Parts: sequence; structure tokens; C-alpha cells
Amino acid sequence: MRLSEYFLPVLRENPSEAQIASHRLMLRAGMIRQSSAGIYCWLPLGLRVLKNIERIVREEQDRAGAQEILMPTIQPAELWRESGRYDDYGKEMLRIRDRHDREMLYGPTNEEQVTEIVRASIKSYRDLPKLLYHIQWKFRDEVRPRFGVMRGREFLMKDAYSLDLDAAGAKRSYNKMFAAYLRTFVRMGLKAIPMRADPGPIGGDLSHEFIILADAGESDVFFDRRWQEIDIPLIEVDYQDDLEPIFQRWTASYAATDEKHNPASCPIPETELISARGLEVGHIFYFGDKYSRPMQALVSRPDGAPVPLQMGSYGIGVSRLPGALIEANHDENGIIWPESVAPFRAGLINLRASDMRCRAAADDLYGKLRNAGIEVLYDDRDESPGAKFATMDLIGLPEQIVVGPRGLAAGTVEVKNRRSGVREDMTTDAALSRLSAA
Amino acid sequence: MRLSEYFLPVLRENPSEAQIASHRLMLRAGMIRQSSAGIYCWLPLGLRVLKNIERIVREEQDRAGAQEILMPTIQPAELWRESGRYDDYGKEMLRIRDRHDREMLYGPTNEEQVTEIVRASIKSYRDLPKLLYHIQWKFRDEVRPRFGVMRGREFLMKDAYSLDLDAAGAKRSYNKMFAAYLRTFVRMGLKAIPMRADPGPIGGDLSHEFIILADAGESDVFFDRRWQEIDIPLIEVDYQDDLEPIFQRWTASYAATDEKHNPASCPIPETELISARGLEVGHIFYFGDKYSRPMQALVSRPDGAPVPLQMGSYGIGVSRLPGALIEANHDENGIIWPESVAPFRAGLINLRASDMRCRAAADDLYGKLRNAGIEVLYDDRDESPGAKFATMDLIGLPEQIVVGPRGLAAGTVEVKNRRSGVREDMTTDAALSRLSAA
Repeated sequence: MRLSEYFLPVLRENPSEAQIASHRLMLRAGMIRQSSAGIYCWLPLGLRVLKNIERIVREEQDRAGAQEILMPTIQPAELWRESGRYDDYGKEMLRIRDRHDREMLYGPTNEEQVTEIVRASIKSYRDLPKLLYHIQWKFRDEVRPRFGVMRGREFLMKDAYSLDLDAAGAKRSYNKMFAAYLRTFVRMGLKAIPMRADPGPIGGDLSHEFIILADAGESDVFFDRRWQEIDIPLIEVDYQDDLEPIFQRWTASYAATDEKHNPASCPIPETELISARGLEVGHIFYFGDKYSRPMQALVSRPDGAPVPLQMGSYGIGVSRLPGALIEANHDENGIIWPESVAPFRAGLINLRASDMRCRAAADDLYGKLRNAGIEVLYDDRDESPGAKFATMDLIGLPEQIVVGPRGLAAGTVEVKNRRSGVREDMTTDAALSRLSAA
Repeated sequence: MRLSEYFLPVLRENPSEAQIASHRLMLRAGMIRQSSAGIYCWLPLGLRVLKNIERIVREEQDRAGAQEILMPTIQPAELWRESGRYDDYGKEMLRIRDRHDREMLYGPTNEEQVTEIVRASIKSYRDLPKLLYHIQWKFRDEVRPRFGVMRGREFLMKDAYSLDLDAAGAKRSYNKMFAAYLRTFVRMGLKAIPMRADPGPIGGDLSHEFIILADAGESDVFFDRRWQEIDIPLIEVDYQDDLEPIFQRWTASYAATDEKHNPASCPIPETELISARGLEVGHIFYFGDKYSRPMQALVSRPDGAPVPLQMGSYGIGVSRLPGALIEANHDENGIIWPESVAPFRAGLINLRASDMRCRAAADDLYGKLRNAGIEVLYDDRDESPGAKFATMDLIGLPEQIVVGPRGLAAGTVEVKNRRSGVREDMTTDAALSRLSAA
């Protein structure tokens, strides 16, 4: 993509409304624009990141055997009356009356809707287990939306739902999603620690939040100091296997959120305990028959007896993740994208757009990069080198390739790694193979 | 995907609420399930089709140089007051008050929102032209939603917006989208005729609808009988070229919607005119400064003078297309998917799941098909052959491969083309290469 044609409205000044780095940088880098409080438009650069995140989430859900569906944003109130949550939910639920004065709502989550779908079509133990997920916009009418996409009102969430015959099956499904979440966040370059958590309005008694440590986090978390040394690898998972060992391995060291942590009953001594700010990127729940019983989602057991489905739900805050990723990956000059979610693999800078030789060389390299299947943002504008470097550092593409008159004379381009800051002169062929290798 | 594990709740009976074939077949084939009037859940099979359609739409938008953004579903009322449409829109607009009693709405379209985005960031003729698009859920509170996804209340639309300095530039953008739409629908196997249309509440004076002829269509259309013989090919388009010849070529024969057709001024004699029912799948508009003027979206010309942006908008009814495609592609046994949008390329039927040899052969072929990258739905259930054939015909995958004891003895499988109905016995290798070739 040529920057001269790209819609990338970067801001020179720090927007005054942004209190944290990720919000500030997403606005400055032209990733998002506020529509109203807590509601954002995703501009081209931001949407590319969001789509990369969504793709990783989807791939790992599919790998775990979850099947994708898509439920609507607007739900009928009567569904939520069946579960009893219509009155419970309070003002965070965006309530709507349609033209016929029917009560509707903008779904903040989908337990009721998915239960309605399966109670009509899943009747027998033979149809189980099932894992269904969707990636859809939700709405929670936060009283004070802030921190940009990290605590928005309209937000994109992946929510999965497991359907099992009994508690043992439900735990197997829980473990599948637990393992899938470990993989999902590692693939984004995030260290997300699974912590015992309070299920809140979703219900149930087994629940984990996947938490990134960050000063901008919304809650206090408590964990074994060993977590500081633990590096979560990209584990290979065979989803046909018993995954309980994986669950045990990654919950062996203590970690809990504020609501769940009780100093009096904490299993590790205070000297081993660390407290920090945490940012939730995923939350998983096992809640048994909390919805299936009142909503009469029954299946017949092998002996013919009808029993309510055993269910769990599993959320990932997709539109919050670009913010979380920036909180974990930035410096004073801007964003530093991990490669797996970067909007482009590299930026190409023509240092002197008015110089015919520079332009020909940069155009040529741009063509070669594209032919090699490398996504590249090409700054072909007639701007000062300083402005070009600042923009590239701000938007945080993993590698920058600089074509300038001095290098051209020597037959080289300069390649700068955004994260390390290391610059190297190399031939265009060497630059091409470095980028192709990744 | 193994059917024994797939969430495919097919219905044996015709649902009484469905009046037209596509609605009936989408419910019966387990593609969708109604949540409330005019609002649907997309189940796995239906979502695969929707995603294929979305992918084709996206590829053709990208090819035409449009850049993808994503605007929110919930918009502030004040934006629509600026354009004057907040009061104009009537009861089709779903109006909402949030917890702070601020007036909001569920976007039925996005002209105001996109104008707000660009007025803040596009200031100069140097930033033009631009084409921005998004694929997002919309809501129109139809008084009588019906025909399933064809006339739903919550629906997925691709809407693009062109931004130009002057009328000539705006017509170039209009032509780009016109050409992209020709390609988009041809790739789905649809003959969508561009017809002069009334711009309605969007405004402007140049507008075309892309219309499929179908008895279930919502409007009367009028066109030159020559359109019956015209086959729209997949035209090669160089979007850098002048596309006016393409526009002229494909509007040369008369075609107009009811609102635009005037018998008194029709340019062709009545004997050459055909009237039929039409189903809108796309609608494009040029409306100049209708939004940019009241909303003050101004750019400076080369001479420095500020002028309002010249704009157009371009919609495709993404979630309506599965219905439109089925209206154009079905028989008494079910759906017949065009290959480009089919949820799976092929179905594999094990005729006798209880027979060890049949199961081994079918499992083996399933593995080979998957290794060849062919998307296949494998009916491994222990059901009668009749039930399996009926399900496969109902869901309409382009090819069916049948593994049975008789064929196995002869070293063959049966391959049936769903559209032609032609059955052929062939070796598994021949079946594999037939499917790989496509």
C-alpha cells in the first residue's frame, strides 16, 4: 500500500482525552476515531490489527473443535426473562423498544441466545459434546467508558459455549478452551496468566481470567512470584487427549484476581506473593445448568432420562486486545507491533521522493516486496525524512526499510528493526530474504 | 468436517412461517434460526456461505482500490440531526436512549458517520480521491419483516463511500464501483442487471440498482428484452483506466426499476419492453454534496478555495445474498450452491456406516480429500442411505461422493453433480483429481 493513497490520519498532538498510552497511540496512529463516548470507528490501520487478532482467535477456536456461528446483536427481552437476567442486569444493558413497542436489548453476552438455539435442536447425548462460538459486537452501557477500546461500550467479543451431558464432559470442554486460550495469547506475543476468578453475573463456580500485567489494568491481581520467571510457550495440543495435565500444569502456581483472592486462605506465604495491576483479555466459565435448567434445554441420557445440558462460556475481548497489545508493546516514539498482529510486515521509506533515482529504486523494491507476498506500507510521500521516520516509529511496523541517495550509491538500503532499534545496511536482495524468512 | 460432529440441525418438515423457497430451504438446511421477527442466528452451514459471499465482496472492493474501515452499529443522534435525516427517517430507524438519556440509534446506513470521519482528517485535494468501505450489521425496523434474510431487520451490508474533489472525479469513483459490482455478482454466479433507480432517502440524482430477476423479488422492474440474451461475463478491469466505456456498455440496453420507469418517456417501444419481478442485491448512489455541505466536510482546491466533498455511496446486501442465491439456485430437493459460495466443495457419503470396509474406505478418502485442501462434509452417521441422500441434496453441495459396498467391490466410488444430477462411477483417484481441478 502506498502511503500517498492510504487513509492514515495521524495526529501530531497528543489527544487530551486519552489518559493511557494505548488510547493515545491508537488515536495518534490513525487506528481509531471516536464516534461517541466508548464507541469507536476503526480506520484502515486499526482494522488490519483487529482482523489479525480475530484471525488468530478463530484459528485456535477451530483447532480446538469449536464451530463458528453468528448470533445477532439485538435480542428479544423475553429470552432474558426466562433466565432471570433481564431484571438482574441493571443499567449496563442497553434496552430498546422497537416500532411495535416490543422490548429488545443489545446483547452484552449470549448465554440465553445460544441456549435457545440448542434447546430446539440438540435432544440427545449422541449430539454431544458441542462447542459453538461466534465473534460479534456486544454492548455494555458503562457509566464511565474510558481508556479507548479497552473499556468501550460497543466492543467485539469472541464468545464460545460448551454443551455437554455431564460435569466430567463439561470439564473436558473447559480444558479445551483453557488450552486454546494459552495458545491464542502466546501467538499474539502476550503473556496472559490464567487466574482463578469470580464468575460475576455469568454465574457458576469454576472460572479463570487470562490476565496481562499492565499498569493500565483495571483490577488488582495476586500471584506466586514464580510467575515472573515462567515463560508460557506455544504448547502443542492434541484436542483428542486428556487435557487435564495441561490445566494442572498452568494453574499449579497460585494466581487469583482481587475478588477471588483471600489473604486469610491464600495457599502461599505472603513473602511469595506479588500484587500488581492486571488487564483481562479472556474469561472462561463453567456454570453447569444455570441457563439450561430454567430455559429447559434438556437432552436425553443413554437411559432415556432427560437432563439439562451442562454448559460453560468462554470470552475473549477481541477489540480490547489492540489496546492491551500496545500497553505491552510501545516506547516513547510509538507502537511496537508483534509480528503476528502487525498491520503490515514492514514499512518502506523513500527518503527523497523528489529524486528520480531514489524513486525508481524504491518503486522497484516495493514491487519486489509485494511479489514476495510481503505486506508493506510504502511511504512515497514528498515529506521530510524526519516526518517519515516519526510516522513509521509511531505506527510501529516490525521492520523499516530506508531507500536513500547515500545507500543507493553504495548499492544498499538500511533496514531498521523497530523493537531493537538496530539498523543495518544491506543489499535489497538481503533485505528481501530477511523479510521473506519470517 | 464429520457430520456426526457437525452442528447441522436440518428440519424434516417445511416450516409454516416461510413463504418463499429460500426462506424455507435456509431453515430446513439448518443454515439459520430466527431469534425474533426479522432477526436471525446464522448456524455453521449458513455462516460458511455468508463468509464466502463476504470474501468475494471484500476482494472486489480491495481490487477496486477501496480501503476497509469499520464503523460502529450504534451512532449518536446528533450526527443525523446535522444532515437533517434524524427526523426524516421515520419509524424504520431503531432509536435508543442510553443510560444517560442520550439519543442514539442503530445505524441503517452510514453516510453521516463517514462524513464525520473524513471532515476531521481530509482537508486537501491532495488527499483525494478516496474510497472507504465497511461490512457491518445494520438495522431497519421494517414494519413487516418477511422472506427470512431477504427482508430482515438486522442485516449485514457492505457500504462504500467515495470522496472526490469534483463531479468528474465522483463519476470516476461511481464507475469503479459499477465495474466492481459487475464482477462481484458474476463471481457468485448471479446475473445482476444494473438498472436506473430512484435514490430514495439516500438522495442524489444518479443511481443504479443491481437486480436479479426472481419471482420472490420485492419490486417490478422494466427492461429491454435484449437483456434476456445478454450474458454478463467476468470482465477484466484495470481500475487505473477510464471506466466510462464499461459503464456505457452495461447501461446501453434499457433497464429501470418501477420508481424510475416512466412509460411515457421510455426510450424503447413497448414491444421491446419486458416487465418482471426483481430482487435488489446492490444499490449505488452519487449524491454530490448532500451530506458534505450541511456537515461542513470541506477540502481545499489547488487554488486554496474550500469546497464541499463530492460523495457517493455503494451498498451490497451481504446477508440478503444467500437468500437471493437460493432463489436463483434450487430445485424440489433443495439448494444447488454455485461453487464459489458453496459451504463445502463436496459431500462424502458413507452408504453403510456399520460396514467396516466401507468405513475404512470412506475414512481414507476423507483424509485424502482434506490433505488435498478440498473442503468436504463427511456423512459418517449411521443413518439410512435415503436419509443421507436427502440431506445432501437439501444442503446443496456441488458434488457428492458416495462410498458403498457395491462400488468398493468394483474399486470405484460414485460421484454425483448436484446441479446436473449426473452420476459417474470412478476410482477414488479420479474423484480426487476431479475435485482438485476446480
